Amino acid sequence: MQGSVLVVGGSAGGIASAVAVKRHYPDADVVLVRKEEQVLVPCGIPYIFGTLGAPENNLIPDGILTQNGVQLIVDEVTSLDFSGKAVKTAGGRELKFDKLILATGSQPLVPPIPGADLENVFVVKKDVAYLKQIQERLKEAKQVVIIGGGFIGLEMADEFRKTGCKVTVVEVLPHCLYQVFDEELCKKVEEELTKVGVEIRTSTKVRAIEGDKKVERVLLENGDHLPADMVILAIGVRPNVALAQEAGLKIGERGGIWVDRYMRTSQKDVFAVGDCAEKFDFLTGIPSPLRLASIATAEGRIAGANVFRLRRENRGTIGVFSTKVADVAVGMAGYSEQRAKSEGIDFVVGKAETVNRHPGGMPGVAPLKVTLIFKRRTGALIGGQVCCGESVGELVNVIAAMIQYGAKADEIAVFQMGTHPALTASPLAYPLVNAAELALKQF
Amino acid sequence: MQGSVLVVGGSAGGIASAVAVKRHYPDADVVLVRKEEQVLVPCGIPYIFGTLGAPENNLIPDGILTQNGVQLIVDEVTSLDFSGKAVKTAGGRELKFDKLILATGSQPLVPPIPGADLENVFVVKKDVAYLKQIQERLKEAKQVVIIGGGFIGLEMADEFRKTGCKVTVVEVLPHCLYQVFDEELCKKVEEELTKVGVEIRTSTKVRAIEGDKKVERVLLENGDHLPADMVILAIGVRPNVALAQEAGLKIGERGGIWVDRYMRTSQKDVFAVGDCAEKFDFLTGIPSPLRLASIATAEGRIAGANVFRLRRENRGTIGVFSTKVADVAVGMAGYSEQRAKSEGIDFVVGKAETVNRHPGGMPGVAPLKVTLIFKRRTGALIGGQVCCGESVGELVNVIAAMIQYGAKADEIAVFQMGTHPALTASPLAYPLVNAAELALKQF
Repeated sequence: MQGSVLVVGGSAGGIASAVAVKRHYPDADVVLVRKEEQVLVPCGIPYIFGTLGAPENNLIPDGILTQNGVQLIVDEVTSLDFSGKAVKTAGGRELKFDKLILATGSQPLVPPIPGADLENVFVVKKDVAYLKQIQERLKEAKQVVIIGGGFIGLEMADEFRKTGCKVTVVEVLPHCLYQVFDEELCKKVEEELTKVGVEIRTSTKVRAIEGDKKVERVLLENGDHLPADMVILAIGVRPNVALAQEAGLKIGERGGIWVDRYMRTSQKDVFAVGDCAEKFDFLTGIPSPLRLASIATAEGRIAGANVFRLRRENRGTIGVFSTKVADVAVGMAGYSEQRAKSEGIDFVVGKAETVNRHPGGMPGVAPLKVTLIFKRRTGALIGGQVCCGESVGELVNVIAAMIQYGAKADEIAVFQMGTHPALTASPLAYPLVNAAELALKQF
Repeated sequence: MQGSVLVVGGSAGGIASAVAVKRHYPDADVVLVRKEEQVLVPCGIPYIFGTLGAPENNLIPDGILTQNGVQLIVDEVTSLDFSGKAVKTAGGRELKFDKLILATGSQPLVPPIPGADLENVFVVKKDVAYLKQIQERLKEAKQVVIIGGGFIGLEMADEFRKTGCKVTVVEVLPHCLYQVFDEELCKKVEEELTKVGVEIRTSTKVRAIEGDKKVERVLLENGDHLPADMVILAIGVRPNVALAQEAGLKIGERGGIWVDRYMRTSQKDVFAVGDCAEKFDFLTGIPSPLRLASIATAEGRIAGANVFRLRRENRGTIGVFSTKVADVAVGMAGYSEQRAKSEGIDFVVGKAETVNRHPGGMPGVAPLKVTLIFKRRTGALIGGQVCCGESVGELVNVIAAMIQYGAKADEIAVFQMGTHPALTASPLAYPLVNAAELALKQF
C-alpha cells in the first residue's frame, strides 16, 4: 500500500495514529507536524509539581516517532486545503498528503468568571514553558485555590499540598469526581484528601476572582472569601476544531469534529482522532463528552489502520478511569449507577468487598471494594467501580476487558482468575466474581 | 428448590461449592463435612514461615460458611453409599444427602527417593500442626534443601531465606517453573532468587536423602552432596480419590475423579470439584494436570449452581498463575509458547516491553514485559505471560478475561484501557495493546 499520510498534532492521538499507519502500511510516507517543541505526557502534568519535580521529567520522547519511521516537523498548521490535498503552516511550508489525520487536541476551558485574567491565575495547559511558570510561582504560594474537583483538579491539589502550601478545591457539584463516580467513591476520595490537609468545598460556586493585578482571594457565591495567592482553573477542556471548522468539516453536537465508526470525518480522505474528535457512547451511540489520552490512543490505532483500507471499527467510547490521590486509588469503567439511571437503563447491581491480599496479614493489604452493573435482560456487564489499593489500576482493566469482550454476569461468576497472597484478593473472595454472583440473585 | 446437599471437604473447592449452593438455592439444606479443625489458605502456606509468622495467621475463617447458612461438621468421611444416599464418618455419623459434592482435595507427592522418611524431611501439607512443626525445626535449621522448583518450592525458598538460613533449590527440569513459563521468565525468577542468596540447581536429580535418623545431606545424581539439616519435598500433589474410587466412581486419565462439563461424576447426583476432580484443558479438551485453588473455586461455583438444575458449564481449565519472589512478580494465563508448540498449534507471538508507571520517573516504576500468543487462523488470544512489578497480579487477569471472553488480536489492539501515571503503563505503551499490534504483523 503506497501513499503519503500527514498527521496534524503530536500528543497521544497523533502519535498513536502515525505509529499505527507505519505498522499497517510500512511503505507509506508518514509525516507528523506539531507546533510544540516538546510534548508532555498529558496525564502526568499534575505530577510535575510534586512527584516528578519538573516538566522536563514528563515528556514523551520523539524516539517513538523516529524509531517507527515517522518524519517529524515542528511547525504550526494554519490552514487545510482538501481539494489541493495540502496544508499550510506558519513557517511557510506547504505539506501535501494523500490521507490526513487531524489530532489537534483540546485546550483548557476558561470559565466566564470576573478576574480569571489576573496574574497567578492559571489553567492546565500542555505547554512546558507555561507549566514551568506555574511551578516557579508555586514556590512562593502559600494558599492555592483550585476551581474544579475533577481528576486533574484533585491530582493537582494532592501534589500541591505536598509542597507545603494550603490547598482548597472548589467544586460546583455535590461531590468531586461526581461526573464519573457514584457517591460512595467520591466521598472516599474527598475524605482521604481532607485527611492530608486539602480543604474541599463542594456544591460551591465561584462568583469572582479578586485582587489588584495579582490574585488575592476567591469570592464564592455565598459571599465567603477564600484567600489565595494562586488559582488553578481545572474545569475541563474544549476540542480544538478551529482549523477543521474553517475548512468546512462537519462539527458534532458535543463540539468535536464529527467522525464515523472508522474515524473518517465528513471529508473524504480526512480522519480525526483524540480530544478534537467527537466521541460516541458505546452503549447508546449518543455523543459523549469524554476526553482521555487512553481514548485518543485507541482512536489513533483505529484511524491509522483505516487510512488506506477500512480495517477497524470504533465500537464507541467506554470511558475507563483510574487515579490515586493521597493513599487511595479509585477506578471505573463504563457506566456508574447514576449514569445508568439517567439513561433509563434496566440494570442490576452487585457489590463485593474484601482486601487486595490474602490472608489479610500480608504486607500492602488495602480494602478492595467492587461495584458491577449489568443490563437486566441480557446480563451484559456495562460498568464497574473499584477502590482502594494500587491494584485498582489493572483491576479496572479487567472490568474494561469484560465489558468490551461481552462478558455476562453468569460468565463472570465463574471467571478463572489468577490469585496470589502477595498480589491479589483470595480466590474465594475475588470481588469481581462475588459481585457478579450477588447481582445474579436479582435477575 | 428443596433438598439437602452434602459437601465433603472444606478447602477452597468445598467452601465455594457450599456457598454457591446457598446462593442459587437458598432453601436447600447445605452441610459441609471436613476432617480439619482449621482450614489453611492454600496459597498462603509458604508465607507462614517468613511474612505471616505462623499458621494461625493463614486460616480461612469459618464465618464464610456460617454467614452463608452452611452447616459445618468436623469429622472424617470414611465411606460413600450412593444407593442409600448417605456417607459414614469416623465419628460414627451417617449423613444423608440428596446431592453430594466431593471436594476431597489433594496431598503432596512423596518421591521414591531413599531417605525421604528421615527426620526433618517434610512435604508441604495443609495441616496446621504439621506446618508448626516445620516452623519449629526451621528455627534451628542452617541449611535447607528444597526439592522441586515449582511455585511452592520457590516461594518457600524465598521465605526461608528471609529467616537467615542458606537455601538450595534442586529442580530436575532445565529451569524452575519450566512447566508453566517460557524460558525467559524462568530465568528472570532464577536470577532474582540467586541475587537474594538462594542457590538454584537446575537439570539436577536427587539420588538420595542421607543422614543418621535426621537428614544430614542430599546426594545428587552427579555425586555431589548438599549439606542439609532440613529438606522440603515440593514436587507436586496427587488427587485424593480413595473414597471415590472405593465407591466405584470413574477415575480420569490424570488420576482425578472424572467429571463432565457440569462437574457431574459418573454417578447420578454426585459432583466433584477442585484438586480431587479431573481437569480438562480449555483449548484441546484433553485432561490437564493443573491444580490450583483458583480453579477449585471456579469449579465449586459451577457445581454449586448445578446441583438441582444444570445452570453452568465448565468451559475447561485455562490456568492462570501469578507469584512474587524476591522483588519480581510474574504471571501467566493460558498457553506458553512451548506449550503451544508441543500441542502443534499454529500460533503467532507478540511481545512488548515498557514500564508499569508513566513517565518513567514515577515512584514504584518496574519493567513491564508482556508476551501474547494468538491462534493464527482466528486471531484468538490463547495465552500471555507478564513480568515484573506488582501490577502483574491483576494484569494477568486482564489477559485471562481476554482469553475467556474471546478477544481477538485485532480487538486487543484497540482495547480501551484505563491508564494513570501512578498505577499503569502509558496509553501509548500499554503492553497488551502493543503486543497485539505487533503480533498482527505476522498474521
